[in-house]
Parts: sequence; structure tokens; C-alpha cells
Amino acid sequence: MCGIVGIYGNPEAATLAYLGLYAQQHRGQEGAGIVTVDQGAIHRHMGEGLVSEVFHNPDLLDSLPGASAIGHTRYSTTGGIGSKNVGPLMFNVRDRAVSIAHNGNLINLSTIRHDLQEQGALFQTATDTELLIHLLAKSRHERLVDQLHEALLQVEGAYSLMILSEEGLIAARDPQGWRPFVIGKLDDTWVLASETCALDLIGAQELREVQPGEILLISESGLESVHQIPAVQPAHCIFEYIYFSRPDSRIFGANVDKMRRRLGRELAREAPAPTADIVISVPDSSNTAAIGYAQESGIRHEIGLIRNHYVGRSFIRPRQKLRDLTVKLKFNPVRGVLEDREIVLVDDSIVRGTTMKTLVKLIRDAGAKKVHVRISSPPIRNSCYFGLDFPTQSELIATQQTVEEVARFLGADSLAYLSLQGTLDAMDHDSDHFCTACFSGRYPLEVKEIPSKDMFELPLESVPVVVTAT
Amino acid sequence: MCGIVGIYGNPEAATLAYLGLYAQQHRGQEGAGIVTVDQGAIHRHMGEGLVSEVFHNPDLLDSLPGASAIGHTRYSTTGGIGSKNVGPLMFNVRDRAVSIAHNGNLINLSTIRHDLQEQGALFQTATDTELLIHLLAKSRHERLVDQLHEALLQVEGAYSLMILSEEGLIAARDPQGWRPFVIGKLDDTWVLASETCALDLIGAQELREVQPGEILLISESGLESVHQIPAVQPAHCIFEYIYFSRPDSRIFGANVDKMRRRLGRELAREAPAPTADIVISVPDSSNTAAIGYAQESGIRHEIGLIRNHYVGRSFIRPRQKLRDLTVKLKFNPVRGVLEDREIVLVDDSIVRGTTMKTLVKLIRDAGAKKVHVRISSPPIRNSCYFGLDFPTQSELIATQQTVEEVARFLGADSLAYLSLQGTLDAMDHDSDHFCTACFSGRYPLEVKEIPSKDMFELPLESVPVVVTAT
Amino acid sequence: MCGIVGIYGNPEAATLAYLGLYAQQHRGQEGAGIVTVDQGAIHRHMGEGLVSEVFHNPDLLDSLPGASAIGHTRYSTTGGIGSKNVGPLMFNVRDRAVSIAHNGNLINLSTIRHDLQEQGALFQTATDTELLIHLLAKSRHERLVDQLHEALLQVEGAYSLMILSEEGLIAARDPQGWRPFVIGKLDDTWVLASETCALDLIGAQELREVQPGEILLISESGLESVHQIPAVQPAHCIFEYIYFSRPDSRIFGANVDKMRRRLGRELAREAPAPTADIVISVPDSSNTAAIGYAQESGIRHEIGLIRNHYVGRSFIRPRQKLRDLTVKLKFNPVRGVLEDREIVLVDDSIVRGTTMKTLVKLIRDAGAKKVHVRISSPPIRNSCYFGLDFPTQSELIATQQTVEEVARFLGADSLAYLSLQGTLDAMDHDSDHFCTACFSGRYPLEVKEIPSKDMFELPLESVPVVVTAT
Amino acid sequence: MCGIVGIYGNPEAATLAYLGLYAQQHRGQEGAGIVTVDQGAIHRHMGEGLVSEVFHNPDLLDSLPGASAIGHTRYSTTGGIGSKNVGPLMFNVRDRAVSIAHNGNLINLSTIRHDLQEQGALFQTATDTELLIHLLAKSRHERLVDQLHEALLQVEGAYSLMILSEEGLIAARDPQGWRPFVIGKLDDTWVLASETCALDLIGAQELREVQPGEILLISESGLESVHQIPAVQPAHCIFEYIYFSRPDSRIFGANVDKMRRRLGRELAREAPAPTADIVISVPDSSNTAAIGYAQESGIRHEIGLIRNHYVGRSFIRPRQKLRDLTVKLKFNPVRGVLEDREIVLVDDSIVRGTTMKTLVKLIRDAGAKKVHVRISSPPIRNSCYFGLDFPTQSELIATQQTVEEVARFLGADSLAYLSLQGTLDAMDHDSDHFCTACFSGRYPLEVKEIPSKDMFELPLESVPVVVTAT
Repeated sequence: MCGIVGIYGNPEAATLAYLGLYAQQHRGQEGAGIVTVDQGAIHRHMGEGLVSEVFHNPDLLDSLPGASAIGHTRYSTTGGIGSKNVGPLMFNVRDRAVSIAHNGNLINLSTIRHDLQEQGALFQTATDTELLIHLLAKSRHERLVDQLHEALLQVEGAYSLMILSEEGLIAARDPQGWRPFVIGKLDDTWVLASETCALDLIGAQELREVQPGEILLISESGLESVHQIPAVQPAHCIFEYIYFSRPDSRIFGANVDKMRRRLGRELAREAPAPTADIVISVPDSSNTAAIGYAQESGIRHEIGLIRNHYVGRSFIRPRQKLRDLTVKLKFNPVRGVLEDREIVLVDDSIVRGTTMKTLVKLIRDAGAKKVHVRISSPPIRNSCYFGLDFPTQSELIATQQTVEEVARFLGADSLAYLSLQGTLDAMDHDSDHFCTACFSGRYPLEVKEIPSKDMFELPLESVPVVVTAT
Repeated sequence: MCGIVGIYGNPEAATLAYLGLYAQQHRGQEGAGIVTVDQGAIHRHMGEGLVSEVFHNPDLLDSLPGASAIGHTRYSTTGGIGSKNVGPLMFNVRDRAVSIAHNGNLINLSTIRHDLQEQGALFQTATDTELLIHLLAKSRHERLVDQLHEALLQVEGAYSLMILSEEGLIAARDPQGWRPFVIGKLDDTWVLASETCALDLIGAQELREVQPGEILLISESGLESVHQIPAVQPAHCIFEYIYFSRPDSRIFGANVDKMRRRLGRELAREAPAPTADIVISVPDSSNTAAIGYAQESGIRHEIGLIRNHYVGRSFIRPRQKLRDLTVKLKFNPVRGVLEDREIVLVDDSIVRGTTMKTLVKLIRDAGAKKVHVRISSPPIRNSCYFGLDFPTQSELIATQQTVEEVARFLGADSLAYLSLQGTLDAMDHDSDHFCTACFSGRYPLEVKEIPSKDMFELPLESVPVVVTAT
Repeated sequence: MCGIVGIYGNPEAATLAYLGLYAQQHRGQEGAGIVTVDQGAIHRHMGEGLVSEVFHNPDLLDSLPGASAIGHTRYSTTGGIGSKNVGPLMFNVRDRAVSIAHNGNLINLSTIRHDLQEQGALFQTATDTELLIHLLAKSRHERLVDQLHEALLQVEGAYSLMILSEEGLIAARDPQGWRPFVIGKLDDTWVLASETCALDLIGAQELREVQPGEILLISESGLESVHQIPAVQPAHCIFEYIYFSRPDSRIFGANVDKMRRRLGRELAREAPAPTADIVISVPDSSNTAAIGYAQESGIRHEIGLIRNHYVGRSFIRPRQKLRDLTVKLKFNPVRGVLEDREIVLVDDSIVRGTTMKTLVKLIRDAGAKKVHVRISSPPIRNSCYFGLDFPTQSELIATQQTVEEVARFLGADSLAYLSLQGTLDAMDHDSDHFCTACFSGRYPLEVKEIPSKDMFELPLESVPVVVTAT
Repeated sequence: MCGIVGIYGNPEAATLAYLGLYAQQHRGQEGAGIVTVDQGAIHRHMGEGLVSEVFHNPDLLDSLPGASAIGHTRYSTTGGIGSKNVGPLMFNVRDRAVSIAHNGNLINLSTIRHDLQEQGALFQTATDTELLIHLLAKSRHERLVDQLHEALLQVEGAYSLMILSEEGLIAARDPQGWRPFVIGKLDDTWVLASETCALDLIGAQELREVQPGEILLISESGLESVHQIPAVQPAHCIFEYIYFSRPDSRIFGANVDKMRRRLGRELAREAPAPTADIVISVPDSSNTAAIGYAQESGIRHEIGLIRNHYVGRSFIRPRQKLRDLTVKLKFNPVRGVLEDREIVLVDDSIVRGTTMKTLVKLIRDAGAKKVHVRISSPPIRNSCYFGLDFPTQSELIATQQTVEEVARFLGADSLAYLSLQGTLDAMDHDSDHFCTACFSGRYPLEVKEIPSKDMFELPLESVPVVVTAT
């Protein structure tokens, strides 16, 4: 998962891209970068860390002139290799600079890769992005937008991507519409982004989504929808609604916040806790679901856990082990709220279960009489090959244990997940418009190769990042 | 305002102090430092920034050996000079190393300072802390705890302070009990801290407060209450309950969270908004008051603003001006919640009013029909000379304008503050146990000198921080 | 110009490579890097700056395990694009990691490059090194050493290069033998380097040169001379003897120091200065030539200029202009030596003439009666396309002005260059064994394309430098 | 030993001070700093490392406005505590900022320090500089120049110091004239410095020395010699001529370079080596003495050792031990010069003897037949308490061994030191005008306390370095 943003037609393109990345920081905290094109020259600044760390100085934005820009925030690299798309990446296609920002994952690539290498292709990374560019470079078409079309017809997977070059700004989305991708306008400026929250911060109005399978080009002639990959069954990632997208965003045509409140309400109907005194959430991601649960159940909503927002990647763990430290650093239980009460604790999902186990314990230690855990999505039992960075299947607690066993592991007085049907019922779209593979195991595309961390990967060279394209 | 922590009798004193500072990060984000004493040697690490930035490497904690430690987080330096206590400070009193962590502000010091300088005293800073040490160094007593007593009898103001030396750990609190200061134990380890949340993270049990006017010494013989400055009328800072302390802390003997919910309830009674559809808070500081308001009024509580926790001091403002950017970066209005609704917006206080003005606008832009602003404390009309870093009086909006004018300035459909009487009624203590000077102008101590930024201040020398005390 | 080193068969290969680079620091101060191979894994550390800056921590060497290593120091990048070889570069040839260190410059490459791109090749840099790897990747041979042979038969220019992979350590030198390249042994360890001074520091014995046109492979089976490119007329760079190599090195089979003393003696014979009182050098590069001049002429040698070795790239020029500052910072005239004396000032070469002009002025200001400038090589009148980073021809003072005009420009009482014939006479080799193009304009290879800074160059991606090769 | 510079009356005072420090880099490589005074405000920038490292950006000079400045380079801190003067130090004397740069060492201070502490004085460092300021602060005089006079009458030792304040620039030199200290002018600008080389780089003319015992004030009224401490027997440090000062400087009224050549000539007369083929030096410090030796003896001077100037403090020693590495990294023997020759190796002094031992070995390994070591000063047998950072007496090889034993330790075929009488004969001044304590043990002042590293030292606080002085 990553966040991407594209700007076309604004003298302050880099600044707008920076804000767009900033708004989408939750989609990737590992790294960030922006590329601009200005009078035949390409400029890039990128680095590891948060957007605000990578762009820690206004000079860095000033060093990115030009009226068009693409930006990228990088997601965690702890999972499969496919997620290691750093960005925006730059390539030299017939001595033209091509920059690409990509959110998603292509699959089943090894045959294509092998064939290309046999013909003498030199790969610099193991990323699917570079492979796409190799395919594009092989194309005999003149225009990049046509080369990209030819390349995309040869691959499958999830992708929302943008290519910036002197031709203009190209955007493409996989035919399943896996990841969100919207188009907005701010006066004469085109703004593309993963989520609408990026448009909101910039002040742009949402026009429409990039359509599944659409390949469009924004140039001096305006926006042109150039190619359309043949339609297939949609497969929107339902986890974007449950957890990943920002609650104030609108994705796949519906408000995230509204879906989450509905999931909470549905959860209250499916899994009530009638004897409970109060409903609390695991802040901040399940706040809305908890409110939905409280509203539907009539049980009072309280703030029983306070999140410590100073915990960052910079926190160092002391060498001495302290019990439950990791969770205690992040969540402060409010004794005055929890003491002598029977608690409904709402969270959006459980992955390994270790954090939830400690939370239950902290809440009990603060004097709670009972703790009922309620999860506003089904048990996660399968890996995602399309962008979510879940651990391997054996580390997913729901794959290994029954709900009863998980409840015991957590030390909860009761545990209930929302059913898959209930989850789908809460949505605005038809049930078959979603990828629910992590819950159901039904993958919209056949995954023939399991991406592995052992895939070959080579370092690329470090050279100055400001280049002249002519 | 600052956060302080003291540890005595634990081989991992530095680590515990680090966690204690971490828990009290909200009391000061400008800088942090820890001093330990180990076998006659004093060790210190300090720096600017968050605790997690200053201690960015476990080696830094390992470099602070010893079984006793004091730590300090520094508060913003944007206000009067008195708040520039950096810490812990170190002094050399007759070739003994003395380290001091101080939360609070002494007042009316210029005569004492002048006399000392006439006698040849060299000042390194303009801090009240250094002046205290000069007084202490002049004392003919043998023990530091007695020297400190002699010194404290000559000054007045707010202080919760600790001195670490080979003699042990000394703690002292002003006779008014201005700032919170608690004593806890973790097995055989003594833990002192500004707030109980530091004890909670460490896992220590609260024993009691350091009493107003008490000077105590923790040494190998245990805790001894050595001196008692004659009792005066208490003057607890009521703003600690309203805003400053962490909601899960217990200060001055009562839960902060409980006081805030009561303030919200009292506010609902004093200033109802019967036509409103929903109550929302300005996250996170007014969450509890908003819930109190919702519970008392019966109006539904919703999450209408989401706080972006990636905004940090590292965020750079682009050179290009973007409308309302500062507030928009921090708060994301949730359109689905706000649209077509009449809103009660609860906040804990208004200082300059500029942020609130923008919030009201953002909420309106998101489609709200009406915005009723409700503040869970009285108008702030006076400076604080005892630790709170308010701007000068002329920048306090409530000093300059009537409530009606403020409402117009904010663009709110209505505005109400909680009354001072209502505020005091919500408390557990008697009304006359608080300093309410920022609201009422009644200062518990006469302030003869207004601390000014123009006071002389000299840089100190930078030398290695590990020193040998014998 | 660059310095390269290769180590094979030593558990401390990285450390030896580090020392080898260190000894050859004079061959390139812009950057440095080392690559090692260890059990199928490739490790690299590289950076900008001096060797001691790039490897500023012993941990960096420890992070480069393995018994074979290649290292590279990068020369100034102020000249043509061909000199921008950073290194060692790494490439992925059919999922095998290939690392290459290259000293020299290939020429006339644009047709080859164009053809490769038409076939879909993606270039990451504009370096000749990458182009060589593309040719190598196209080869149908199995072994790298054979692929390299096929590639080298297609190019021309100056190169001393090494390729490190799991196959072993491959070394190749152009058939003209343009740049020095020697083989040494330290017990069972093979050591290859540009100059013998690298062998000396490591403690290795010189065995022989890599022969012009030779392609050799060092593997577990020892050193094998695998291919030999057909012999051509030798073209050793005579400037290596005059200025570039270290005086204690032995290159092309002769001692550099000895050649320089001979150049000084020959200069004394060709261009005496019978009325002079003392001979001084421009330290340190012309010290030996000055001694040769003094010995042959019988004029006393003195130290009239002292070089300030604290001048580094880190020196910042104050914004205020100070007369002659650049030269004064570097050279301190010794008034007691120069005052009232007639001086012979010996230097090895003149490029633009600006430094020499200021030196003459400084010497006069220190009281010298007369200044006779003597240069131990002919006037530089032509660009070098084979590794020396001279400015463009129009900036070479000798191209624009006669010797008399140059003397006037310098403010010298007399000026003499050593003749080309005298220069060649001083050498051990036959006259036609050298490239003297910078003096004579006779290029050993026809240069059809002038390398230009405007050549397209793209940034490469930054990813972690430790990789697993399978 | 340190280098100091003072500028008065130039709008670019900081830049001139920077150049003055740069020229005196050899007097201290541990750290550097500059203080300026501008319209009642004091500005300082300082740091560890070389001048060019501390001032790595022109902005840093721009941040030091004002027409007067003092600068300081810090010498190695490996010796006694007295040498730990970092600088310039800043103090607050009755709310006036006083900055001081000090080169030298006060002695016998413990009684004064103890008395001050009994009166309540707080010391921030163990430096003699701070003690001086405490004395100054106790003085009842109004003017700093008078306060300083009163303070200096109470202490003894070596000092060349400057105090910068709003009153102007005060300079003082101990009555023995231990360290060099000169006054120059550049148009209307006053320039004070340790050595004339600083004046030369700036372009200032030398006027005269600060006289031994003189206390002068430079203000808007010009230079006034305000006080004169009663005259005593001069005690110039003879080691300044032998090694410490720069050869192009003029100190104590004579050219350093000239003294060194004379020392070499005297050495040739006292200790000839008639069978030797060539004379070589240990570059760069003994170059001049070696030339003197060659001229007097008639033996040919050659360059047998080349110094590697890339060795810096940044060089990291590999963890693996390599024989003789330290010396080999620094000195490259030139085999072509040394092979089959009988060598005279001239150096200026021997401290521990370890470097010389390795040099002799390297020269032999390069094929020398015999190595005769000749030292242009007497054996160093005593500690210096006045600024030179020799190791403890037990580490001085000449204290422990006879000349014959040292020769054997070095592996030299012969060894001779210049006699003390010969050393003094080479000088321009009378024999009794020098401190020769390191050779003779005769200390000009009685040293009652041996400075020790165990002296108490406390860290000072770090606060911003730009301050407003009223």
C-alpha cells in the first residue's frame, strides 16, 4: 500500500504534491518522494521517513520547479518483496526521462522477467515497476501512453499508477479497480490522488474516479481518456473501508467514515453485549466503529484508552525488558473510566492478537470487571498479494485458532467478529464488487507465484538527483 | 511548565527516568535531559526536541549508569524568560556536583540577584534555578538539604524541584502546592514525578503527594521529610485540570479525566444548545469535556474532526501561502458527519482565538448548518507568572473583546464559556484552594517584577557531559 | 583518472582494499567505494569525499565481509562526462550480481548506445561503464570473462578495469596500456592496483603489470591470463610520470621519482638561470623536479613556499573578496628565504596559469628580486579524452598565448618549458611508447565524438546496499 | 598551546578572525570559535575540529556581525587539565557579557580557588580562565581593563590573552613573554595574533609585539597601553622556534625559518656524518633544519620520505592490526632515493621515539645501507606546565634512556641530539631569555601544584549562543 499524488498545470506543483502526500501519510510512512518536470529538466527529491522528515526544509520544495509533479509515500517493507516500490522511480527510456509512481502489486511476473533477461535486459531492482518499464521500453509505439497500454496488457495485478514525462501526466488503474484513485480540480490545476482527503487539504474538488481499466493522459490539451482495458468484475479492496483509508476520505464512491459507523452498528446487532456499562474504542482507528456500536446498542460511549501520539519510529526501546511496555507506551488506560465497569472494547481487526491481548490486560489492571472484545470485520485468515502487508499466514491468529481459542488467548470475557455477510451488507456496493480474499480466501486473480523476500535484488547507483533531460 | 521525574534505588534508574519523561512528554516538548549519579561520577545526556529524539539510541541510556536519576522535559520558550529552565541543570558547589530539575517559576528576584553580583557572583544564565543555587552556595550549612532550605526561605513562587547529588535525592515543593508532584514506589525503588501517569507507565504505585512546603531527602536511610516551610493558603493551578495534565493522571488528589467530564456536564447545564444535532470535540484535549457535555445534554456525540498526528515540529510550511493551511493540516473535518447538521463544538479554552476561528470556518465549509462553540473554562484574561506560557495580555482575545465580540470574531452562531463559579463547583477541592489568576486576576502572591524577555542572558560553555565528581 | 584496487583470497579483503584506496587517494578525491563478495552475497559501501571520510568508522569495513574485494576512488567531475565513473558500480546480469571498478575512458560510443536503446535497453547512467555492461549482457557466452572479451572487442579507449563476481576477480587493460595497472602478491593474497604505492602500503610484492590488452581471471585456480586483445602501439600516458602518479610509485616499469628528477635535470640543461641565487619548488608536486634542477645547475635549493595542508574541500570562502586569497591560503611564502634573492621557481606544469601568476606575485611581495619560472614539461595545448580532466582548450593558457605572452601574464622575469623532446629523452621507454596528445595533439586513437556535459544522464534509485545474490 | 586572534575596527571582523585562525591552525586542531560584538549584542560560533570544519558554511560567518572579534583554536586535550581552555569563553560580569580568548597556562591556583568557593563562588569549569574571571568579578574597579589588572597581579603562569566586551578589545601578556603575541594593522583595522603568519594571510603589517607584562586596550580612542606588570627575566618558549610556530612566522622578534636553518647548521657542525650519501628530513616540520644540515655539511639533500597529507583525524584504523601501519600511512619512503645509500635523517625532536623507530625501519626496508639520526634540539626530559602538551615524564624516552640506548631502541646506526648550548647559540636572543625547562629542568617559575586530569570539572549548560547584552 502506498499513497500517490499527481499535479498538472500549477506553478507550485511540488508544494501541492507535498500537501497531497502529507494528507496521505497514513498510506505509507517508510519513505516519500516527489518528481517534477520543468522545461525539459526532471527534478527529484526523495528519502526515508515521514513526508515531513523527507521535506524538512522549504528549500527542498523550491528545488523542485515545474508545473507538473508526481509524489509517492512508501508503505512498510516488512512484507513481501512486491511492496518494496520506492518512489517515484525514474527511468531513461530512449534518452527520455520517465518517472513513475505506483500503488499496488503486479503478480505472476517471473516468465516475463526471465524472457527479458535472456534478451540482455539489465534489471536494477526486483520491483514490478521496473519490469513494467522494461515492457514499455520494448514497445514500438511512439507515445508513452501507448507504450504503457501495450505493457499493461501483458501484466495482471493491482495498480493505481502515474507516469510523468514531457508528454504530460499519464494515469492508469487496473481493471478490477483494486485501489482507490480519484481525479480532482483546483481551478485549472489537475489533481490526482489515492484518496479524496488529499484533494480536501489542497482545496481541490473531486471530479470522478480514474475508472477501472482506464489509461488517461493529461496534457496541454486537457484530460483525455486514451485507452480502456476490457472490463472485468470489480474487486475493490474492502479493507480500505475497514481500516486503511482515512475516515474523512471518500473512496470507491462512498464515505469511509459512514461505512465504519455502519460496520459498528451491524456489529452491535450481530454481537450485542447487553450487560456492558460502556463502549470504548482502540483509538484512533476504531473510534467511528465504536460510536456506531454505542449508538446502535444504546450503551454509553466513553474514552477509556488514550493514545500517546508521541510514540514514533524514533522511540528507542530500552535494553531492559519492561512488562507490556510496547502497548503501554502507546495506550494509556483511564482508570476513572474503566474501574468497576463492564467494558465493550471495539477494534477494527485483529492480526496477530498480541496487542489486543495486552490491551485487555491493561484494561483489567485498571479495574474493569469484564472485557468484551468486538471486532468490526471478519477474522483475517489469508495473505494479501495485492498491497496489504499482512504477516505470513502462520502468524495470523485467526488462521491458527478458533474464535473461542482466540478469546482465551486474549483473556477476553467474550469475543465476536463481524460476519463477512454483515461486513458486505454494511457497504454501499454489491457484495461481488469487493476483494475479500484476506477473509474469504477467494482471490479475484489466480496467484501462481508467491512473492518472496528471497527474490534477487540489486542496489542501484547513487548519483545526483537533478538531471537535464535534453 | 515542565515535567520532572526522579528515581532512587534502581540499577536501571536512567531507563525508568526515560519512561517517566516519556509519559510526561505533554508537559514539555522543547527539550529533555537525564542526570544520573554513579559511584561519585555524574552523567548527563540532554538535548533539544522530544524525549524520543533526545534519546534516539539505547546506547544513550547505557551511558547513564547509576541507581539514582533525575529527568526533565522542557516547556515551550515562547513566553517569559522564567520558563527557560532547561534541565536538569548542573552546578559545582564547593567542588561537589549538584544537579537540579525544576518545574515552576520563582518571582521577584532582581534584588537578590543584584546583591549577589555585587559580591562578585558570576551568573551563567538568567534562570531562577541558577539564582537558587547561588543562594544555596552562600549558605554555611553543611548538608545540601539544609542549604536548600535556607535558600528557599529567601524566595517565593511556584516550584516542584529535585536535587540529585551524592547525598541522595532531595525534593521540594512550594508552600502553595502550585504544581502537582507525587511520590510512588516500585518495589524498593522510589519514583517521584509531576503526574501519576509517569508512575503508571513505570508500574509504580502512588504513595502520596510531596506536601506543599515539604523538603524531603531520599537516601540509603529511606525517605525523610526534613524541613517544612510554614503553611500558607493552597494555590493549585486549576489549569492543570482544565488542560495541562494528562487525562489519565491523578493530580492534587483527584482524577483529571473525572474533573474534565464534570466541566463538560456543568457547561451543558450552564450553556445548553437545545437545537443542536450533535456534539463534537476539538481532539484530543477536549474529548472528555465533549463527552460530558453530550451525556448531560442528551445530544449525540460524534467525531467531526480528526486530528492528524503526523503534524510535528518537523513540518515545514511551504513558502507559498495556502488558505487556512495551519489548521487544515492538523484537523480533518469529516464531511459525512458535519453536513447539514447543527453542531456543538466543545473546546477546553480559547487563547488567541485564531485556531478556533478557522475550525469554525472548516466546519461550516464541510456543510454544517450552525456552529455553537462551548468552552469548558472561563475566559483567559490575565498572564501567568507561575509556569503557564500564555501570550502577553494584549494577545488574549478575552482581554480585548466581550464574549459577543469573540463570537463574531469566531464566526460562531453562539459562544459560551463556563463560569468561574461553575468551574470551581466542578472541582473536588474547596474554591479557595486554587490559583485562578489567569481567569480572575487574583494572584496568590504579589508580582512586583514582570519577567521580561529582555532580561540578560548569557550562553554557557559546551563541554563534555560526563564528569568525575571526586 | 581514478584509482582502483582489487583483492582476492584474504579474509580481510575490505581492509586491504581500504588501504589500497587510501594509498591512491591522489588519483581521485571525489568519492570512494568498496565492494566485497561473501558466500553469494555482495556488499558495498560507497560515498562522496575522501576515502577517510567515506570510511569514517571501522564498522563500515566490518560490514563488508568476504575474501575478495574491489575498490575505486573517483576523480574530479568538473570535466567531461566520461570521467563521471562512480564506483564500484553494480549491475544485475541475469540475476547475478556483477560489480565493476573502472579507471579510464571509452570513446566513440554513441552508435552502440543508440542501437542498444532501439532494442529496448534501459540505461541508468551515461557512463561508458554501464554501456560496457549492456554489451556484456547481450553476449551469449556463459562466463563473464568471455562476455567481457566479446564486449571489449567492440569498444576503444583507455581502461584499466576489474570485475568482481562469484566467478572470481577479472582484470582487463586496454591494448595501448594507457593507465598503469600492476599485479602484486602478499603471501597467498592477490593484489591489483593502479600504482605500486598501494602494494607498498599493504606490504605486497609487485609481480608484473597487467599486460596491455590482457584479460585475466583470478579464481580458486589461481591467476589465468584468459584472453589477449591483439597488440597495438603502446600509448602510456606521459602525464602520469610528470604529475599524476605518486613519486614513490613504480609505473610502466620505472620509478616516478627518478623520472621527475631527470625532468628537472634536463630542464636545468635546456633552460638554465645562471644568475639565480636559489631554486625553490611549488610544493609538493614539483619538489623532486626542483631538486633535480638544483643538482644539475649547482644553484642552492631552499624552501621558499610552505604548503598549508589544512586547506581542504571543507574550506569555505568568505563572501567578502580578499585579494589573492585562494593561493595565499594554500602557499605561505617564507620571507626570510625569498627576500633580496633571485629565484628559480620550478613547477611541473601550467594549465590556466592563474595560480602561478599569484605565486609569482606573492614571491615578489616577499621581497624576491627576480623570479624565473621553469616548467618540467611542455606547454599543455590539447584536451585529453582518455582520463585527464583538463579544462576546455580555450582555457589552456598555452593554447592561446606564446611563451613570451605567458611570461608577461605571469609577471615572471623569465619563463621556460621543457621541450617535448627533452621530456621524452628523460624517460626510460622509447619515445613512441607514450601518449603525448596534450602536448603534441597527436592522439593515438581517432576521437570522433567529443564527450559533452550535455549528454543525457538519469539518476539511479537509492536502495539498501547489502543484497543477497541468491 | 592555542592560537588566538583579535580584530578591532573592521566591518568584516569575523571573516578576518576566521582567516587569522586558519593561518594558525597548527597551534590547535581540537576546536575553534569566534566571538563578535555588534551594537551591544554578542555573537559566538564555536565547535570541535579544524577551523574549516567548524566554519563549514559562509552563513556561519555572516551570523557573526560586528566590527570587533576574537578567535581561538584549541590545542590537544590529551595532557594536563590546564590545556582544556576552550574558546573563546563567555562570562557574565554584572550583567555585562565578557568574552575571553586565552593561550597559555596559569599555575598554582588551588588556594585562590578554594577561597573563592568558600565565599560561595560557583565554578562552571576547572579552567584557569574561569578562575581569572572570578577574580576579575571580585574587583571593585569600574573598567574591565582595571579589573583584569587587579586579577592578573594575583596569578602567575604563561598567558597571551584577549578580552572582548563593549569597552573594546583588551590584550595582556604575561611578564615573562612566554608565548608569542603580536600587534598588526591593516589600514585602520587592528589585528592581534599569536604569530605573524596570521597577519600575513590577512595582509596586515606587523607593528610590534604585545610587550611582556603589558595590558593594553584598543577602543575608539585607539590603542592605549594601560598597565604594565613589573618586569621580570624573560622566558620565551624555545620550543616555539624548534617546532611549534610556523616557519614563515616571525616570533619574539626573529624569523622561525632562519632559526631552524641555523639549528640544522649547528647540528651539522656538532654531529657530522661524514660517510653519509644524502640528507633527508622528516617532512614537513624538519625540512628547514635538514636543508641547514645539508648546506653546512655539503651532503646532498634529497626527498626520501613523502608525507601523505590525506591522513587526518578522520582516518579510521582498521580493527585488524597491520605492521607499522600508523607510520606507513603518514610517510611514504621513496625507494629510488634510499636504496643502497647511507642516510642522514634529520628531525626536530624526539618525544616517545616510537614514530622515529618505525621510520628508521621503513627506511632500512627501502634498502638504505645506514641510517644516522640527527635531532635539531636537545633531549626532552621534563614536563611543560606552560602550554606544551608533552606526555608524562615517564613516557619521554630521553628521561628513561641514555642516548646510546635510544639509538639502539630506534635501530639507528648513530644518533645525535643538538646540545642545549648549541641550541641557544643558534638563537638571536641572549641565552637567559628562554624557558628551556623541557630540556634543562630549570623552570622560570616554581611549580607547586602539578596539574592533574583528576581535577574537578563540571559540564556547563548548553543554551543558544546568540545573546543580547542589554
